[in-house]
Amino acid sequence: MTESKWYAARRTVEQVEEGTELAPKFDENGLIPVVTTDHASGELLMHGYMNEEALRETIRRGEAVYFSRSRQALWHKGATSGLVQKVVELRIDDDQDAVWLRVDVAGGASCHVGYRSCFYRSLPVGGELPEAPIALTFEESEKVFDPQVVYGDAPNPTKL
Amino acid sequence: MTESKWYAARRTVEQVEEGTELAPKFDENGLIPVVTTDHASGELLMHGYMNEEALRETIRRGEAVYFSRSRQALWHKGATSGLVQKVVELRIDDDQDAVWLRVDVAGGASCHVGYRSCFYRSLPVGGELPEAPIALTFEESEKVFDPQVVYGDAPNPTKL
Repeated sequence: MTESKWYAARRTVEQVEEGTELAPKFDENGLIPVVTTDHASGELLMHGYMNEEALRETIRRGEAVYFSRSRQALWHKGATSGLVQKVVELRIDDDQDAVWLRVDVAGGASCHVGYRSCFYRSLPVGGELPEAPIALTFEESEKVFDPQVVYGDAPNPTKL
Repeated sequence: MTESKWYAARRTVEQVEEGTELAPKFDENGLIPVVTTDHASGELLMHGYMNEEALRETIRRGEAVYFSRSRQALWHKGATSGLVQKVVELRIDDDQDAVWLRVDVAGGASCHVGYRSCFYRSLPVGGELPEAPIALTFEESEKVFDPQVVYGDAPNPTKL
C-alpha cells in the first residue's frame, strides 16, 4: 500500500476545483500551508505547514499535526505544551494548495510566546507609509501561559 | 528613500516576538503568506501571498493587494471582479512571517470559482485512511457569482 492511495493525482482544473476527490498540492519543499482558527470564536490562531505525513496524521488522529520547518520534523501540536488542537472541521481550498483547520484548543492558547493567538499584534492601515518602522499595537494584553514554565530550555522556533 | 524605511531589520528574537517594530520576514521567493478572514463572520475567505510591494500597497490603500504566484504580478483583489477587500484590521504573527487581514468584501464573495470562501469543501477526520481518494463534501451549495460572466476568458489561476 503506497501512502498516496488516500488522495488522487491532479489531472484537470475542473477535477481539482469542482470535484469531490481530495487532490492536494504540496509545494517544491513538499509542504502545504495550514490556517488554524478557533472553531468557536473564529479567531485566527496560527499559520503553519504540513507535509504529506502530517496531513495524513492529522486526518487519522483528528488532532493537528504540523511539519516544523525550523526543526524539519513532524510536530504533534501540544505534545510538549499539552495545548493539543482537536480538529472540529478540516477544509481545503479551491485549487487544493491550502488547508483550513477549525480547532478546539485544550488550555486556550496556541502561541509558543504564550498568547492565545500567534497574531497578537496589529498594524495601522491607510495613508502614506512613515519613514520609520511602523509601530505595532498589542491586541492581547496578557499571556495565557509562561513559555519558560511550559517549554523550559527548548530552542525557540523563531528564526531571524 | 529606500522602500524598507517603513519596516525594521530583524535583529533579535525578542525584538521580533515581543517588540513593537514591524519587521516582516519574506521567504526565499520574497513572499509572506496572508490569511484573509471576513471581519464580521470570522470565516476564512482565502490564503494568498504578498511581496514587499503588495504589503506596502495594502497598508497604503487599506485594500488587499496580493502577489499572484501564477501570474507573477501584483494583484489588487477586485480590480477585475469588483470584489474589493477593504481591510478592517491587519495583524502579523509572533515571528512576523505571516499576515492576517480581516476584511469587508464588496459583493460578499472572495473565490474565483464563484463561492463566498475559497474553502468551500471539507474532509472527514478521525480513524484510518481509506484506500481510495478521500471524498470531499461541499459546504457551500450555491455560487455567489458566475465566474464566466465576471472573468470571461481570463486564464484560470489554478495550476496543476
